[in-house]
Amino acid sequence: MRAELAQAADASVGLARSPLAPEFPDLPVVSGARFAAANTGIKYKDRDDVLLVALSPGTTIAGVFTKSATRSAAVLDCQTKIASTKPGKAAILVNAGNANAFTGGKGQMSVEALCEAVSDTLSVDASRVFTASTGVIGEPLPHRRIVKKLADLKAGLSGKAMAQAAHAIRTTDTFAKAACTEVNVDGTPVRIAGIAKGSGMIAPDMATMLAYVFTDAAIDQPILQRMVERQVENSFNAITVDSDTSTSDTLIVAATGASEAKVASARSAAGRVFEAALGDVLRDLAHQVVRDGEGATKIVEVTVTGAAGKSDAKRAARAIANSPLVKTAIAGEDPNWGRIVMALGKSGAKADRDKISIWFGDVLVAENGWVSDTYKEQDGAAYMRGQDLLLRIDLGVGNSEARVWTCDLTHGYISINADYRS
Amino acid sequence: MRAELAQAADASVGLARSPLAPEFPDLPVVSGARFAAANTGIKYKDRDDVLLVALSPGTTIAGVFTKSATRSAAVLDCQTKIASTKPGKAAILVNAGNANAFTGGKGQMSVEALCEAVSDTLSVDASRVFTASTGVIGEPLPHRRIVKKLADLKAGLSGKAMAQAAHAIRTTDTFAKAACTEVNVDGTPVRIAGIAKGSGMIAPDMATMLAYVFTDAAIDQPILQRMVERQVENSFNAITVDSDTSTSDTLIVAATGASEAKVASARSAAGRVFEAALGDVLRDLAHQVVRDGEGATKIVEVTVTGAAGKSDAKRAARAIANSPLVKTAIAGEDPNWGRIVMALGKSGAKADRDKISIWFGDVLVAENGWVSDTYKEQDGAAYMRGQDLLLRIDLGVGNSEARVWTCDLTHGYISINADYRS
Repeated sequence: MRAELAQAADASVGLARSPLAPEFPDLPVVSGARFAAANTGIKYKDRDDVLLVALSPGTTIAGVFTKSATRSAAVLDCQTKIASTKPGKAAILVNAGNANAFTGGKGQMSVEALCEAVSDTLSVDASRVFTASTGVIGEPLPHRRIVKKLADLKAGLSGKAMAQAAHAIRTTDTFAKAACTEVNVDGTPVRIAGIAKGSGMIAPDMATMLAYVFTDAAIDQPILQRMVERQVENSFNAITVDSDTSTSDTLIVAATGASEAKVASARSAAGRVFEAALGDVLRDLAHQVVRDGEGATKIVEVTVTGAAGKSDAKRAARAIANSPLVKTAIAGEDPNWGRIVMALGKSGAKADRDKISIWFGDVLVAENGWVSDTYKEQDGAAYMRGQDLLLRIDLGVGNSEARVWTCDLTHGYISINADYRS
Repeated sequence: MRAELAQAADASVGLARSPLAPEFPDLPVVSGARFAAANTGIKYKDRDDVLLVALSPGTTIAGVFTKSATRSAAVLDCQTKIASTKPGKAAILVNAGNANAFTGGKGQMSVEALCEAVSDTLSVDASRVFTASTGVIGEPLPHRRIVKKLADLKAGLSGKAMAQAAHAIRTTDTFAKAACTEVNVDGTPVRIAGIAKGSGMIAPDMATMLAYVFTDAAIDQPILQRMVERQVENSFNAITVDSDTSTSDTLIVAATGASEAKVASARSAAGRVFEAALGDVLRDLAHQVVRDGEGATKIVEVTVTGAAGKSDAKRAARAIANSPLVKTAIAGEDPNWGRIVMALGKSGAKADRDKISIWFGDVLVAENGWVSDTYKEQDGAAYMRGQDLLLRIDLGVGNSEARVWTCDLTHGYISINADYRS
């Protein structure tokens, strides 16, 4: 079944499965969260393209969204709703194939119509319905075709259908993305499981990065929201495929409370364990998005240490991870540390040329502003032939650090984005 | 002769001449500026790779340099010297093939040794010698091989050798770059002529963007410096190939005063005519750098109007011009205006989704936040098949505007930067 779904994924977009794709995990049932997928035929004719999630009465919802000034109608709607702190029934509706972005007033009307329809179908307050749309932008969303499927979707809801949910939200993804873990909260096992879609922030017609994470723990919304905001910094906000930010990026975390395990505060022992586990799941999903980066053949972790401040560390790491010259060098398996120096230079982060050190994995390449005495080009070249690469840079001017994940920039990226016409 | 030089250019780097290359201009003699080129064999064995320029006693020098935190020793040296306002003899020395960047204390010593040697050879104060190095970084510069050539270079100095100068400073450039104009200053004809190198900010081993402009007008240094700083904003600071900034970018403008024409202030009629002409030459050279962008097949002018402020306008234009998704769409001749909306969204510039309008050339694509009623996809597609493209975006929130020039992102870029190993 899983293999069939994976094959369907490849066939639907005409792209080969990423060589960096991990195995799809065995997803647990998260009590209080039920899933159903269906096909509306809006863009994809022979695969599920709409997902409905029904969440039980004790659910709190936290979320983080794109900061784009041209964000979609669905994102704007979710943002007004996410502040609600009262636990209660909730629902999530996602369609793939049409992003309902840059569609003017009609786009807003589609979001309202969908929320009303889901509200009626599941007897959930419309202010507790969170929608997202991903795919082509600038085309009006034929939302009635989704509304017509809601009765079938309701009938099909199942706690065991999260894998199908992961497949239904894909656009140009070459594999479905999911991650899960289980932690012990005051003696009660708690499940955290999530799904994501995205091939970078990007796709032939503007993809979105969407992620939905579910847990059966009980957590007050403000505590959950702060945990999500903290953990997103080192997961989804620490990845880049090509520096292009989607208009629809959405991360929603739903805590159903169905397990009886209560996380009362972020500072308690239980809160720390839970937040760390949540961070692990977010990071796992974020890495899968990079592993499905368009044309990617290598995944790269960039660690910057010794920065003057946290924001400087991230700025330097991002400049390296976004540099076309660094990313093409990685694609070419070229240990071209000069391009890293260039990217540091342009980043705006405080740096002293004569204090910079650079490592490729364990290979010390440069120190004190010049190539290391011990460095041999053949060692760097051998390291760059690997698939999972670690680049470490010490700026030597402070104690802050940051980590960012990216992929290489290959002919595959150009083919996907230039050769295939929309 | 010119055709031979152009062929030599192609052969030296193994790259085909850019399809966007313009004809090489007929360069005038600029009184007071003499040029000589030679081969040191440091990297290129069969072409000139070092340039010496000797400037007459009335010369003032203005300059603008990279803001990179890891800028090269030569740039740091030039920056300390550029503030000198006294007219006098001066010299410029450029070598291609080795950037003398990230070479620690040795790099600084090489710059000092070269300045002393040029000072001795031409009887110019060392504080009036401006050097630049472009090419591979991280390798020590064998400056003695350059010093040995200085006597020959001095013997060969000629006012007619500016074309050879343009060729000698190339690295991965597929064509030599020059531009010139003549203006009338209070009845006296004044020549402005310049050369540049650069294939974007970038090349297989970190290129530099270098430009040298010469005029026989007499201008006090502070006036010339302010003119250059103003004009660079709409020329070299308004181009991007891949958002990667070199460690060695240098623009130097030398006014020899040999023509007897005096530009006494920037606000006089003569000052305005001169500054506009200087801006034209800088813009021409800057466009040639984009036309030689690695892998470029199209040159694109991005104009943003209706922005809330000047910096917002430039930020929005730059975000579009740097977006890999926009640039690959252009390569694919895809009128994908959605990607422009995405780039605007991420730029951080103030924008109101429902007030944005977009034109491809004269084709109105989107208005008021949605696709225009009059827009036909076939019109957009036909326009995108051109080689020189104009993208115009009105943000509808203010009165500021900015223009930026870029090229498309193609398989050629990946081939040059990933497939060829350094």
